[in-house]
Amino acid sequence: MFPIRKSMSEKPLILVTNDDGIHAKGLRELVEVIQFFGDIVVVSSETSMSGKSCAITVDHPLRAVPVERILGVPTYRSNGTPVDSVKLSFNGLLNRKPGYVISGINHGTNASISVIYSGTMGAAIEGSLHGVPSIGFSLDDYSRDADFSKAKIVVAKVFQSVLENGLPPFTCLNVNIPKGKPKGIKLCRQAHGKWVEEFEKRTDPHGREYHWLSGYFKNFEADALETDMYALDNNYASVVPVTTDMTCYKTLSQIKDWKF
Amino acid sequence: MFPIRKSMSEKPLILVTNDDGIHAKGLRELVEVIQFFGDIVVVSSETSMSGKSCAITVDHPLRAVPVERILGVPTYRSNGTPVDSVKLSFNGLLNRKPGYVISGINHGTNASISVIYSGTMGAAIEGSLHGVPSIGFSLDDYSRDADFSKAKIVVAKVFQSVLENGLPPFTCLNVNIPKGKPKGIKLCRQAHGKWVEEFEKRTDPHGREYHWLSGYFKNFEADALETDMYALDNNYASVVPVTTDMTCYKTLSQIKDWKF
Repeated sequence: MFPIRKSMSEKPLILVTNDDGIHAKGLRELVEVIQFFGDIVVVSSETSMSGKSCAITVDHPLRAVPVERILGVPTYRSNGTPVDSVKLSFNGLLNRKPGYVISGINHGTNASISVIYSGTMGAAIEGSLHGVPSIGFSLDDYSRDADFSKAKIVVAKVFQSVLENGLPPFTCLNVNIPKGKPKGIKLCRQAHGKWVEEFEKRTDPHGREYHWLSGYFKNFEADALETDMYALDNNYASVVPVTTDMTCYKTLSQIKDWKF
Repeated sequence: MFPIRKSMSEKPLILVTNDDGIHAKGLRELVEVIQFFGDIVVVSSETSMSGKSCAITVDHPLRAVPVERILGVPTYRSNGTPVDSVKLSFNGLLNRKPGYVISGINHGTNASISVIYSGTMGAAIEGSLHGVPSIGFSLDDYSRDADFSKAKIVVAKVFQSVLENGLPPFTCLNVNIPKGKPKGIKLCRQAHGKWVEEFEKRTDPHGREYHWLSGYFKNFEADALETDMYALDNNYASVVPVTTDMTCYKTLSQIKDWKF
């Protein structure tokens, strides 16, 4: 379908990464299912990079060292963000270019507007910029010991479709999976919503104020059947194609007569 | 033009922030020009947050304290990312909600794909999610003592247009300004391009390898007149409307028959 985006190699190298860090259960579970599709290398951070978006590290150098293999797979620990790990993997860290970038499985969803804050999706977006099919997977369960058994079936199905069909250039997939047994998998668009913050103000033992970020997600179109949030709310996994072109073409046409 | 997006107050509160940190010349220059348009408050980080994208801080609490005023304007120093600073400003830090978020003036451009990595644009995108017209400004000069005198005229003109016309919901502007005297201001779309990384590998005094991120920008459509890169390359300032909907609708329609 998108032939130039498919790997030419029989056994592609698949870069597996995440934003929850190298010790996360979701990473190990992702390796467990992806290993059936090709050679794997894992490059992930020592600590959690949750919420790191497409952040890159410019003020200090990056280090990536081989560490104990996850499920027998070559594994590198990086001190960078998810995007840094992908960039390093395509530039000098590995002796073979990855043919795919698979990120996750995130502990917690990255549907709707969360795509812009997500380190999981940052890695997938970066993968697409390196010209290879890339997917971010997230499970609607924030717990450390979440049950990924059903999620892994979704991962296998979606990845199989991408292996067979490729993906168009500079586009990746944002896949979100409900808790429990999904009823199926739906292609969706990003729901229109936002996080309503409720910072919790506290005072430290020295009398100084600090703020903890918290809040809840507000869906502006809860009844829109074609959205990722609607799919998740109805126990379907959602697949949203994500672009790297952030131009708002509608606004561009609306404001074309502005005089500066 | 977009009446509900205009501030109802005669003298709106304008949040000024950036990603180069509170000591950057570009921030002070932005305050200098924006102060003519309303009441200003500055919330920015102590250190550089360059390349922080839309990153948020979830693993430690945020602090924001009043510090010495910049040009007489109330100024807060935050320990968070640009997006954190905007979130805090709308949630408890200030006793009045900002009517506009203006970010910059960044030392260096954020045109084309740089929009996804930019902390300057992270702040503007976050502002738009809080329902107020938001703009990120960047100058094509990375030097610490860059000359912002001509850039400030572009800032004034673009902000005046936004004051008069408003902006549609969940859309902000990415404004990039060439070095020297711009020939004019052009509405554009994001150019299709990417950064080609060239990590520089070094060895520390302890014999361990580390990698410095460097590289160059590659424009895939250098002749496309309607792009921000073309405008900049021809000494025009570029204005690109930026959306928070990252769905790739073209791909969505292309892959609608995929069976999972």
